[in-house]
Order: sequence, then C-alpha cells, then structure tokens
Amino acid sequence: MAAPAATSFYISTSSSSSAVSSSTKSLKPALSSNLGFLSTSSPSLKALKAKSHSYNVSSYGGALNVRMVAAPAAVKAPMSLDFETSVFKKEKVTLSGHDEYIVKGGRDLFKLLPDAFKGIKQIGVIGWGSQGPAQAQNLRDSLAEAKSDIVVKIGLRKGSRSFAEARAAGFTEENGTLGDLYETISGSDLVLLLISDAAQADNYEEVFSHMKPNSILGLSHGFLLGHLQSLDLDFPKNISVIAVCPKGMGPSVRRLYVQGKEINGAGINASFAVHQDIDGRATDVALGWSVALGSPFTFATTLEQEYRSDIFGERGILLGAVHGIVESLFRRYTENGMSEELAYKNTVECITGNISRTISTKGMLALYNSLDAEGKKVFATAYSASYYPCMEILYECYEDVATGSEIRSVVLAGRRFSEKEGLPAFPMGKIDQTRMWKVGERVRATRPSGDLGPLYPFTAGVYVALMMAQIEVLRKKGHSYSEIINESVIESVDSLNPFMHARGVSFMVDNCSTTARLGSRKWAPRFDYNLTQQALVAVDNNLPINMDLMTNFVCDPVHEAIEVCARLRPTVDISVPADADFVRPELRQTVN
Amino acid sequence: MAAPAATSFYISTSSSSSAVSSSTKSLKPALSSNLGFLSTSSPSLKALKAKSHSYNVSSYGGALNVRMVAAPAAVKAPMSLDFETSVFKKEKVTLSGHDEYIVKGGRDLFKLLPDAFKGIKQIGVIGWGSQGPAQAQNLRDSLAEAKSDIVVKIGLRKGSRSFAEARAAGFTEENGTLGDLYETISGSDLVLLLISDAAQADNYEEVFSHMKPNSILGLSHGFLLGHLQSLDLDFPKNISVIAVCPKGMGPSVRRLYVQGKEINGAGINASFAVHQDIDGRATDVALGWSVALGSPFTFATTLEQEYRSDIFGERGILLGAVHGIVESLFRRYTENGMSEELAYKNTVECITGNISRTISTKGMLALYNSLDAEGKKVFATAYSASYYPCMEILYECYEDVATGSEIRSVVLAGRRFSEKEGLPAFPMGKIDQTRMWKVGERVRATRPSGDLGPLYPFTAGVYVALMMAQIEVLRKKGHSYSEIINESVIESVDSLNPFMHARGVSFMVDNCSTTARLGSRKWAPRFDYNLTQQALVAVDNNLPINMDLMTNFVCDPVHEAIEVCARLRPTVDISVPADADFVRPELRQTVN
Repeated sequence: MAAPAATSFYISTSSSSSAVSSSTKSLKPALSSNLGFLSTSSPSLKALKAKSHSYNVSSYGGALNVRMVAAPAAVKAPMSLDFETSVFKKEKVTLSGHDEYIVKGGRDLFKLLPDAFKGIKQIGVIGWGSQGPAQAQNLRDSLAEAKSDIVVKIGLRKGSRSFAEARAAGFTEENGTLGDLYETISGSDLVLLLISDAAQADNYEEVFSHMKPNSILGLSHGFLLGHLQSLDLDFPKNISVIAVCPKGMGPSVRRLYVQGKEINGAGINASFAVHQDIDGRATDVALGWSVALGSPFTFATTLEQEYRSDIFGERGILLGAVHGIVESLFRRYTENGMSEELAYKNTVECITGNISRTISTKGMLALYNSLDAEGKKVFATAYSASYYPCMEILYECYEDVATGSEIRSVVLAGRRFSEKEGLPAFPMGKIDQTRMWKVGERVRATRPSGDLGPLYPFTAGVYVALMMAQIEVLRKKGHSYSEIINESVIESVDSLNPFMHARGVSFMVDNCSTTARLGSRKWAPRFDYNLTQQALVAVDNNLPINMDLMTNFVCDPVHEAIEVCARLRPTVDISVPADADFVRPELRQTVN
Repeated sequence: MAAPAATSFYISTSSSSSAVSSSTKSLKPALSSNLGFLSTSSPSLKALKAKSHSYNVSSYGGALNVRMVAAPAAVKAPMSLDFETSVFKKEKVTLSGHDEYIVKGGRDLFKLLPDAFKGIKQIGVIGWGSQGPAQAQNLRDSLAEAKSDIVVKIGLRKGSRSFAEARAAGFTEENGTLGDLYETISGSDLVLLLISDAAQADNYEEVFSHMKPNSILGLSHGFLLGHLQSLDLDFPKNISVIAVCPKGMGPSVRRLYVQGKEINGAGINASFAVHQDIDGRATDVALGWSVALGSPFTFATTLEQEYRSDIFGERGILLGAVHGIVESLFRRYTENGMSEELAYKNTVECITGNISRTISTKGMLALYNSLDAEGKKVFATAYSASYYPCMEILYECYEDVATGSEIRSVVLAGRRFSEKEGLPAFPMGKIDQTRMWKVGERVRATRPSGDLGPLYPFTAGVYVALMMAQIEVLRKKGHSYSEIINESVIESVDSLNPFMHARGVSFMVDNCSTTARLGSRKWAPRFDYNLTQQALVAVDNNLPINMDLMTNFVCDPVHEAIEVCARLRPTVDISVPADADFVRPELRQTVN
C-alpha cells in the first residue's frame, strides 16, 4: 500500500501552506465561512495565522502551553495491511490519501460462508458475556440462512448462571449446541474465545491445552496477546490464531443484525487480524466470521494494533473520557446557576442524542457548521481550551496501554475481586448513585419519545475536541484510518452513545465489559480533573481562542475519510428502547 | 527477630476474642468509652458485634460490600531487617509486638562521623532539587561540627540554573565544592544521587560509568532499583549501593535540622538500606549519612520495600489521597449549603492544622476521643463509609507500584514533557486555579497567626479512615512498623501537612518532586470519585455504621506502636512561615 508523505497527516497554518495535502484541498474553500464568527469579512488563512500569534498562555502550566508540532517528520506511516482472499471480494478505499483494503458485508454473502469455513464442523462460542450471545446468535442465523450444517455450540463453565440465558436463546444440551467450556473447546474446529479479558488471562493455559491441533482460535480482542507479551509468552504453534473485533459492544452487534434483516443486512463494522496461519485458511475463516456477524465492512489490523486502539478507545471517547467530560461539565453548569435538569440535558442528553446523531449522519464539520455565529464562537472557545487537556490524558493512556501497564492493571484488578493475602475482596462498585445520575433518571423518565436533547455549543466543542484529540493520537501512533475512524467516531456515535442515550452514561459504565468498566473508573476522573483544572480555568480567564487549532480542525483530512466510511454504512440507524437490556447476565441475576 | 503469629496483626470482633493479641490488651479497657456514642451504658464487645450484624449493604456494589477478613492467616510476617554497626549504637524497639532495630540520632553523634565515613574524602551531592540542597547543607554543617575535612561537593549539569542557588548556599567552584555533574561523580568516594527519578531513569548508565571502582552510590529513594528491575538490569558489581531515605521532603529535612540546633538536634526520621556492600563499610556509611542529616531515628529497610512504600505513600495519604479527599469533601459541603470559606476551613485547614497537630502529639485515638458524643457519631459515620472505598484505591495503587507499572508510568510521563513522534510536549499543568484553591488563598490571607483551623468530625473521620486503610495495606504487604508509621503517619502530620497548612494542598501538588506530583495527578481524582460514588452515597442513604470497623480502629495495635515512635521524636515542632520557600529552583526561575 502506498503511504503518502507523513506530513500530509497534519495541517498546521504555522507551517508553510505546502504542508496542506491535496486530499484536504476540497475543504479549504469552506474555511472562511466556517470560522466566520471572527469577523464579517472573510479572513484569509494568513489573517488567521496573524491572529493566532496573539495567543499567549505561557503563564499557564500544562497542556495549555502546548504548541502545535509544525513539522511532524517523525510520524510513522500506517503499517501495510494488505491481505488476500479467495472467497470474498477485497476492495480498496482511499482514506485521507491512504489506500486501505476492506471487505464489504451483506446478507447476500452468507452463501459464501460454507466455502469460507471449509474444514469446520463445529464453531465453539466460549462465554456468554457481551459478545458471546450476539455473535453466537448472528453466526447461527447466518449459517442457517446459508443452509450450512456447521454447529454453533456455546461452551460455559460448569455451574455458570449463563446456562439458562443460553437456553433461552435456543442453545441446548439436548441438540448439542450447549455444553461444558473445555469439552466444547476440544470438540470445535473454530473456537471463539469470548470470555472476559481477565478470565482469558487466568485460563489461557487450560484453553490452549484443550484445543485440537490445526484448529483455529478466534478472538474478538487482542487483549490476550498483550497479556502473553507481558509474560514473554506466545500462542501454541500448532493452531491458527485470528481475530474479528466488532467495533461495538455485543448488544449492538446483535440488535443491528436483527434490525437489518429487512434490507441487505446491517451491523457493526469489524476489524480482522491474522496472527498465525498454519494452513492458509485463516484469512477466509476470519472474513467469513465477520460477514456472518453482519459487519458492513471489515478492515485489516494486527492483534497488537487492535488491543492498543481498543483498550485505549474505551478509556477515551467511547466511555471513560465521555464520562469524565460530562461530570466536569455538569458540575460547571450547575455551579454557574443552571438547573440540574437543564445541566443534564446540556451535557449527557446533548452528547448521546443530538451531537451523536449529527456526527453519525453528517460528520463533525456539519455539527460545527450547524451553529450560528455566537454558537460557533462558544464551540471554538470550548474546543480550543479542551483539545490539549484531553490529548494529554489520551496520550498518557495510549502509552500505558502500549507498554502493557494497563493490561497488567486489569489483570490485577480482576484478582482483587477476590480476597487475597489478608486483604478483603473488592468487587467493582456502582457509580450511578451520585447526584448527576439521579437527575438523569428523572430527565429520561419525562423525555418525549425520540427526543435527542439540545445542541449546547460549549458541550459540543469539548466533545469534538476530545474526538479530534483521540483521532490525532491514534494517527500519530500509526493506526490505519479505518481503525481510527471506527474506534473514535463510528463506535461512539453509532454503537455506544445510542445505548447511553437510552439508559444513561452511568448505566454503561456499570454494565459493559469488565476491562472497559475498570478503564472507565480509572480514566474518567483524570479527564474530569484535567478539564476542570486547565480547560475550564482557561475559559474563565478569557484566554483567546487558539486559531491554529480551529483551522486544523476545519482542514483535517479525517473529515473526508469519515465521509468515505459513512458511505459504506447501511441505511439502518440503531434503535435502542428505554429498557434496552444490555446488562451482563451475571449482574442481572445478582439481586442481593 | 521474633515474628509473632500473623493473627496478632489484625483484630476483628467477628473472630474469637483470642485473636486479640497481647500487645493491644492495654487498649481494650478504653473501648467502651471510646465508642460511647452508641448508648449511655457501656456496650461490651459482644454487644457491638451483635449490632454490627445488622449492617447490610449488599445492595450497594463495590467497596461497601467489603467484609472484614476475619482470619488473615496468609499475612506475611514483616521481613527480618537486623543489621550490625561498629560505629553507632543499635537499639531494639518493640512495635506492636514486633522487635525492630533502629539507631537514634543526635548532634552529640556527629563526632562519630569521621569513623563512619572512613575512606571517604569527598561526598558528591548530585542534583539541587528537593533533597539536594537540604542534604548537602546538613552534611556540610554536621561534618564541620565534627571538624572533619571531608568535602561535600555539589555536582550539576553544565548550564543548570541551579548553580546560582548552590552558590547562594555557599557551595562554589572556587573552593571546590561545586562543579560539573559527571566530574563530581568521578571524583567522589560517596555519590549521593539526588536528581529526579525521571532523570535517574534516563541517565543511570552514564552515572554508573563515571563512578570510581569501590566507591559508594547513595540513593534517597529506591526508584532506580525499580526502574532497573523493570528492565531486568542491576547495579554495577564494583560499587556499594546504599540508601538513606528521609521520611519527609527536603525542605523539612533542612528546616528541622536548623530549628533543632539549640537542643540536641531535630530532623526527619529516615530509613536506610544496604543493597550491595562490596567491602563491609556500607552499613556504617549509611548510618553516618543519616545521623549527619539529623534523623531522630533511622530504621532498616530494603531498597525494594522503600520504593514500594514511598511511591505508594505519596500517592496515598501524603499527597494524592489527601488532595482527592479535600476536593470531594469541599464539593459536598458547598453543595449542601456551607459557605466556601467555611467548607475550605472544614476540609483543608482542619486536616493540615488541627487534625495533624493532634495526631502528631497525641495520636489518632486521642483525636477521636477529643470529640463529644455527637462528634464521635459523625466521625464513625464518615470513617465507616470511607474506610473501604479508600482502601480499594490504595490497594490498587500499591499493586501498580509493586509490579512496576507506576514506575514505568513516571518514566513515560517524563518523556512526554518533550515533543516526540509528532505529538507535542506536555509539561505538567498547575492545579491551583480552580475555585477551591482560590478560596484557600483568601482563607489563608485572613488567618490569624498560629490558627490551626476547626476540628470538623466528618472530615476527621474520612482522613483517619484513609490513614488506617493505608496502614492496613502496608501491614498486609509485609512492611515493618517503623516504615508503616513513618510513611503513613509521621511524614504526613510532621512534614507535609504543616507545609500544606502554610501554603495550601495545591501548592504542594504543584511543587513537590516530579514523581509525587505525577502520582498526585493520577491518584487524587481516583480517591475523589470513589469517595463521592460510594462513601458519600452511603452516608446520604443512612447506611448503618460498620461497628466491626470502629472496634478494629479502637483496638488496632498500631496506636501503641505510634506512641513508641512518638517517644523517639525530638521536642521541636516544625515551624513553617506563610512564605515558606520550598519551590523547586527550576520553577522559581521560570517567571514568564
């Protein structure tokens, strides 16, 4: 894949105009009107640049002292992620000037599944948490449609309370589609290991030892590789190792698949990775798995890039950061005299409703352009003050994930769920009993059906700054645009935020995967404090808007890349009812 | 050293009364009156136990579900830390039934320094941050008093802005007591490496390569060992490696030394460790170094136990946790209608003034007993609700430190202070511009001289719960009582809190060592969120007081051990003027 010059990644008005890549030229004419709040005449880029030089914050420490890196010469080009498939159709997409390769999905491709899965008689789906129920049901339904006799069998730990759940979904011991965990592993040709990250870390040896030689281990997350790396270990050499990682939580993987049945399918995009391929089947099995799940498009990654972007992303805009942001802004708005209900609407409802829907369908620039001049100015003030304070925490988080510290932390936390060494057990606590989330309950209770909340420009500015900062960190760390956009934009506005709109952010923080929940508890307060200590202080002190940042926002090539991805999206929007049930079964059954 | 049965570590009324160790029997008679708020008649332990069984919080998740570990059989006995000295007098202290060995300090021992330092002609003090100025001056003054001709020479990086500071303190190039960093290392027989942790991590190879064979490397912190361990490395084999770690920041090490000149010395207790001893001199050199600094008593540890307890402690009650606590409580008090000034007094002023002074001079039980019946009840409510939520974060922090993740995080953060890989530099931000700290400025500006603030029972309950939880975590992780008490109690109430009383918590968070400042930014918000989400919610929901916890608090053998340590304390209280200058020089000179 041709990697264009690294400088095209980043547009800065402080460097020469030749740094503006051709891929973004189409956006430039919009600039003067986009930043029209500055004056009634259209300022040129040069005028903007002059303006930005008056920006002086050196008396503030920290992220607000940050200066744009004008010549990011050291930026890694995204890794080459080409692949060959003999079953599906590989297509090229050009994202911000980078060629990337994908496979589009669709229910018309289910007929190819027997070919993709050749040699596989049984697919064992291990675990019944977030991804397990969704993937098992989608796979079963897709294979049935293809009239395949491949068995999808659920494997659970003896005595697990999830047996009843799996039976309710039609998997039974009687027809051989439900059984013991290790027995199911031993009897499967493709083993989808969908137990929690912590459980994978604690049980991988036994899982490996039960796998048939030449069988295929399927992961939906690179966590286990990260854990093995931290122990200087690797996977057994006599199996293939692949991953299909839906860029959304299990319940949305299932929900969109069901909703999309009437058209030619809908679902959640997925990345796939082939980590180890002992007999040449791995790529097509992975692509078949992804198509069977209903992925609108499947892009390539590596297990390592996957766990980095995934664990990072859920600590960032997908969950942790969004939680921290709304806590910080809710506190600010109420302290400044806004009623609790309105403050809730102007934070959570605004992000999970209006902002998400607009970004999902029209993109970030359209969100900004939908504001009037005063709204644009407020947005820019918030954006300018929040971008680097958000990036500071995101950057730290990325490096903690990449070095293995975050993975180690998740494994250790899992062990503290039980008593050890004379210290008591610490199961994870709930976050939903504080003032803000009680207000949220009241707001949702009286919310008209379909209401998407207000569009509050300050909140929009902070949220979009966070999104852009996350995109920038992933970009500088060498991730593909497909991965960046799915992990930072699509998964947020199309998968998680709609669920949060239905049930509140706190419900998500209390009920998603253990790794994500732990991460959110760890990182949300960091975003809150950094915004409160730096961004909001800067706003209160009337620090001038950083025009370089605004220009970069408007000119960023990611907007065009997002548009390309949006064209690959099915026409179905996810619909989440107020009582959407995405509680993990183990929680659902622990009523005292 | 005889290690008594592990069960004597922990008193639980849910286990049989025989679990109460003999060392705590003397405290038991006080119990009924201590918990006198329960009823006017004195309740027996049995009655308390019955009462506590009505405590049911299983509908709350998280730390409030935590149950006491009744039989902590797995608790490690503290490691044996005996040592031999031919110069000083080793004394035995019995702390909570454990024999530990210490060396008492005093200016009358300075005459032994030439003997302790035999073979040493020059002591190189490398770095001029927090410990550097204090240790260099104390060492120089003590050696002068002993009429020793050992030279104390400061070594700084060429061009460092600290040269002027060192000259102002009387170290000059002309008389050979100030020079280049590596030249000073090469010319010294004892090298005290007092540069920041991050600088040690980045420069250890060059430091090692400049050391004379058979010279002694002195550390004031085990961080470098932790860093080397994370890289699977060790110190060079041809040098001795020792540590003397004052349990207080540099400015208090110097301040108390100066204040104590009139009596027979005062200072900050220190731990010492001999990590590598190539010629038998290491122990006496370390003890001489500690005595010369003015340490009232010096206890033994290992470099590993030191960095664990130290990095953990500053993230806990010394700085990070106390910051998180006051943010959480200030917010609560103001949200409940208290004026900002009063809320500040009832949080920061209360902890850094009244509570610290009382604990310093009379201990935690006396603080509790000084409250009236209603105050005791409020204290117990706060203590009971906060103990496990505090412990949950402390426990996580300890394990992150012990596994090397926290050390890795500090090293990575240091590297993000500079631009890299196309991402901008992120110097650490200030925290002191938010509402609370602005209120603090006003409160301190009008505070009568010597005012120690109110004693607000709720704040006292939360703070003491944090202190006890930290003690418990260190105890279960096998640290000696000397280390536990110095790191969790003495350093807090005698070194850091008095400085924070003079200048505010935020000033400390913005100005202490880089490792501590990073840690405080990372952990303070965690304590804040956990308290807010769990402890304060429990209080608002009128959760009954956990009487087991209160009984354990009153009966804990640590109180007696603290009393023993307090008897070793000099009669001088640290006096910190409002303009106390403990700003690191590099900050002092960057006035934009």
